[in-house]
Order: sequence, then structure tokens, then C-alpha cells
Amino acid sequence: MSMIAGPLLQTLYDAKLHRLLVREKERPFDRIEAREMRVLIAGFGRFGQIIGRVLRARRIPFTAVDVSTANIDFIRRFGSDVYYGDASRLDLLRAAGTDKAAALVVAVDDVEASLRIVELVQQHFPAVKIFARARNRQHAFRLMAMGVKTIIRETYASSLEMASAVLQGLGASEAEARVLIERFRKHDEATMRRQAAVRDDDVKLIAAAREAALQLEHLFESDTAPEDLQSADQER
Amino acid sequence: MSMIAGPLLQTLYDAKLHRLLVREKERPFDRIEAREMRVLIAGFGRFGQIIGRVLRARRIPFTAVDVSTANIDFIRRFGSDVYYGDASRLDLLRAAGTDKAAALVVAVDDVEASLRIVELVQQHFPAVKIFARARNRQHAFRLMAMGVKTIIRETYASSLEMASAVLQGLGASEAEARVLIERFRKHDEATMRRQAAVRDDDVKLIAAAREAALQLEHLFESDTAPEDLQSADQER
Repeated sequence: MSMIAGPLLQTLYDAKLHRLLVREKERPFDRIEAREMRVLIAGFGRFGQIIGRVLRARRIPFTAVDVSTANIDFIRRFGSDVYYGDASRLDLLRAAGTDKAAALVVAVDDVEASLRIVELVQQHFPAVKIFARARNRQHAFRLMAMGVKTIIRETYASSLEMASAVLQGLGASEAEARVLIERFRKHDEATMRRQAAVRDDDVKLIAAAREAALQLEHLFESDTAPEDLQSADQER
Repeated sequence: MSMIAGPLLQTLYDAKLHRLLVREKERPFDRIEAREMRVLIAGFGRFGQIIGRVLRARRIPFTAVDVSTANIDFIRRFGSDVYYGDASRLDLLRAAGTDKAAALVVAVDDVEASLRIVELVQQHFPAVKIFARARNRQHAFRLMAMGVKTIIRETYASSLEMASAVLQGLGASEAEARVLIERFRKHDEATMRRQAAVRDDDVKLIAAAREAALQLEHLFESDTAPEDLQSADQER
């Protein structure tokens, strides 16, 4: 239950804060409105909002779309080109001006909606660069199979930050932890690519997973030189 | 629905893979068993598993606890000291050997369970260093109020990676994107601390939010020197 209550509570909190903020002084959005929309953000929860804040701070105009009407007030704070609706519908994508976008950020938390959005945009707006949030490895595999180039697993980077913090808590230096995590990341991403290539073939998938586990131990056990790391990485 | 189906599908996938793997060759875990447990990982889904993989690769012994019986097979792959149960129960924490742990990683996705675990461990095992996953800002505020030092919001780092990728997709260099994201991160973390200090006072919370929004624009608009950044950071 809390998985669903979490974002709602956050939204209510943000909406409340926003109402209190705008009561005193409304911020002008004209500078953003005057420029053409360059980025479409589909899904404006925890993940999409961070993208929006970075873009806004850089004065890069974007349109945010979210299925949650509770997000309305909060989204409005970020610009005037805001649509409330289902970004996995072609009419919404057209209305949002996707044909003029340079980039689409698929930041919805629903896996099937994410895949539908990617499919629609690839089909109808092939010039738009797609950046996709993935729930997990399986979702990432499906996005990779669709040809999406930039796929970021939603908890992956934070879990690596945590792993780094734990290693340091146990006595590793910051530099040691950084090297280890970077090594893990390269390894994991190479493994993902290998597994994605054989994800429909159980035997090959198992072989890839076993090889990956062995490689990982080797990478961490030995004082692997950067050259070795690189060549291991190129084996994928 | 898919928010709940996601991890289940991942788990089933991993369990399937694991069953196929162990059928052919079981890996020996004796080296891990022979050493004392140093880390307790409460919650072994997407987030906790990454921590576990990093620790395992470093031969750091850990115990994982998860409420999901579906995770059993998968967790077993990571070591023999595995408990299936609710880590927010004191008897489970005792049975898992929390008194011998140097660190506790709270990686459960349920906010209330996370807070209960922290409370129990602070009360009964005060020597254990706590590393907590937070669902969102509100959860992070509550963990901060409890005195937890290392709190990592579960989608925050990945959303910043995505923001960096989008900036680069729009023409920023990798170095430019890195500087901007680092600036955003410092700003956001300082804002979090300020907001946490006044989270029960609406007026001060609003003032902190407004100041943060203005500061963020300033940080991004100007060619802020590192000294300026630092002093802004110290204002918190």
C-alpha cells in the first residue's frame, strides 16, 4: 500500500507547498513560454520533476505530461505548457507538440505505459531522441529491444551510491569505493547488453549470467589494471 | 498495478534464472560463511540486491532479510545467512545477529517498515551504523529527524543521471553537464537540510522553498565560481 501512498503523499505535500507559495507571489513564466518547447517529459512524479527542475534552471523549455490530476498545481509551477493526460495516447502527444521536441523523457512509473509511449513516438515522431526510465532489468531489456539508446534504471544509481557509502563505512577510502563502484557499473552494464542479446534463449542467458558472476569476482579480487578492465569490457 | 507487478516479475525472472543456474553447478559459499557477518541488509529487492552484489564481490559477509518468500532462491545464491521474515521485528533482528553487524542497510521499499527498523536498531543495537534508502523527500525528512546520517533517495541519483544525459543530448558537453548536475545536487541537498529543520513550520518551510528556488536559478544562470558555490552551500 505504501508503494502507492508514497507518491501521493509527496504530491499532496508539494501541492500544499505550492498553493501556499503562489498565494503570496506568482512567478512569471514568460521567458519559458516565449521559447519553443524542446523537451517533452512524460510522467512528472519523483523522477520527472528532477529532470524538470534541472531543465528549468537552465531555461530549457519543456512540456510536462502526467496522468495525475493531483500534480496539476505542482506542475503548473514549472511552466505554462502543461498537459494533464495519458502520454501513451497519440492525440495527447500531438497536442503536446511532440513534433517540435528535440527530446522525449519517458519518466512514467508504469512499465506498459512507458513501452506504449516509446512505440508511439518512434512510429510517429522518429526524429525525437528518447531517454527512458526503466523500472528494472526486464523493463530495460524491453526498451533495449526497441532500440532506445539511453535507458536509466530508476533505483540503480542510488543503490550504487548506497553501496559506495557502505564500503566507506566499513573502512574503504572514497577513492577506493569510487573505483570499485565504477568497475561494478561497467561490468553490470556490459552484462546487461550481453543478456539482452540472448534474453529469449534460456541456455545462453544462463551462460551469460554465469560468466558475468565469475568475471565480477575476478574484477573485484584482482588489482585489475585499467587496460585489463577495458579489455574485459570490450568482450561483451 | 504494474508498480506491484514489476518487482514480482523481476523476482520470478531472477528465481527462474537461479534455478537453472544451480541445477548445473552450485557455487561454494564457505568463504563467506566462515567470516562473521558485517552487514545486515533489510530488504533484498532491486535496491538491496545491488548492495549485496557489491559486498559479495568484495567478500564482505552480509545477511539479507526479506519479507518476500519469492526471493528465497535468489537470496540463497548470495550466502547462507539468509532470513526470510520481517526485519521490522525485534526477534528477527536478534536472530539475524544484528548485534554483531557493523552496518545496517535499510533497503525495504515500505516507508513505515523502514522507520520501524531504524527505530528498533537505534534502540537495541545503537553501535550499528545505519544506511537508509528513502522513498522520497518526506521519507528522507523523517529519517533525518531520527538522526540517520546516510540517507539516499531511491530514484534521485538515477534522475540526475537522466538529467545529465538530456543536457548532453541537447548539446552540453559531458563536463558541462557534470558541473551543472553537481551544482544542482549540492543545492538540493542543502535545501533538504534547511527544509528538514523547519518541516513542521509552514511559514518557514515556504520561505526555505522560495529561497531555494531563487538560489537554484542564480546558481545555474551565473558562471558561479567554486568559491561562490561553496559559500552558498554554507548558508544552509
